[in-house]
Amino acid sequence: MGGKMKILIIGGNGTIGKKVSHHFSQKHEIIIGGRNSGEVIVDIAESQAIEAMFESIGKLDAVVCIAGKAKWAAFDSMEEEDFYIGLKSKLMGQVNLVRIGRNYLNAGGSFTLTTGILADHPVLLTTSPAMVNGAIHSFVKAAALELENGIRINVVSSGLVEDAVDKYEAYFPGHNPIPMHKVINGYVKSVEGKGTGEIIRMYDNC
Amino acid sequence: MGGKMKILIIGGNGTIGKKVSHHFSQKHEIIIGGRNSGEVIVDIAESQAIEAMFESIGKLDAVVCIAGKAKWAAFDSMEEEDFYIGLKSKLMGQVNLVRIGRNYLNAGGSFTLTTGILADHPVLLTTSPAMVNGAIHSFVKAAALELENGIRINVVSSGLVEDAVDKYEAYFPGHNPIPMHKVINGYVKSVEGKGTGEIIRMYDNC
Repeated sequence: MGGKMKILIIGGNGTIGKKVSHHFSQKHEIIIGGRNSGEVIVDIAESQAIEAMFESIGKLDAVVCIAGKAKWAAFDSMEEEDFYIGLKSKLMGQVNLVRIGRNYLNAGGSFTLTTGILADHPVLLTTSPAMVNGAIHSFVKAAALELENGIRINVVSSGLVEDAVDKYEAYFPGHNPIPMHKVINGYVKSVEGKGTGEIIRMYDNC
Repeated sequence: MGGKMKILIIGGNGTIGKKVSHHFSQKHEIIIGGRNSGEVIVDIAESQAIEAMFESIGKLDAVVCIAGKAKWAAFDSMEEEDFYIGLKSKLMGQVNLVRIGRNYLNAGGSFTLTTGILADHPVLLTTSPAMVNGAIHSFVKAAALELENGIRINVVSSGLVEDAVDKYEAYFPGHNPIPMHKVINGYVKSVEGKGTGEIIRMYDNC
């Protein structure tokens, strides 16, 4: 699958997504999906919305997901239902994208999910997002064993990205920001490479 | 916290649990909990049952969980709700044990959760259990940053255990069984050691 691909990028207007979308748009046909903006509107926490989205788009060569939420809060303030925000959105949202989307991918196509450094190196307030990210790492390894038709799956796990430093640096003491061109390359490696079951980690000082 | 401890072992009559319980009972006061048997009956998928259990037992020095289920099935047969079996039981069951149980642990006490090799090295049919195990690994690292009063948390992740070979070996081609005395030592290291945030891995040929 060299050449021009048709790529769906969920969260393609977000902080990371807009840089990734811009990069891929230079070589490929891009469809941007998002909760609030994009060519297709979709909340990945709703599996029926995912199904409807794929049905409306038709066959694809790659699905990239840079979306999904999870609650950041002190562990001693987290109620059971607070954990389900992340389980339903960032975790099962991405799992459902794969579960449903595999029927809409061309042979040799790929899924690229997104997690983050918290899976491996959590910081305060991140019991829920860390859990969700770790879940996806293991899911990707397991799903890679079973996907057919040459369909690949990888996950990009970045440290604090350069473009989110203003918003998040207080939560990540001493973390070196990851330059956006390196973040973009994580997605390129997954989509244009041949690997599967990979956790593409881009961390700096850990 | 040297000396004799009061230890709750959920799943203490299971394949691994009965060996672990027997070992700890030689030095400590043991309370066995389980879904179908034990001194306290509890399904960890129900957080109200967890709350009632801790209320009935009172203060403890250690909580060990060797319980929780998740569905094994081919990925292409898994419906969304099939994933929630594991999310509600093995994942949130163990999270809720910590979330609720931290109020019932003495200072310096510990939680020891259980996952398994699938978090790191999944086999076929394990998208759900792998996901759950990976989630717990990251949760344990994140929770360790926030637990107070010297309360520790670790997770034991074993390969195919010797006593489960007959039941599971077909699912784990080429995996070397982990001897039960090594599995027991994983729990001893967590409960009687001083580490926290540790993933105590006992794998053989990977």
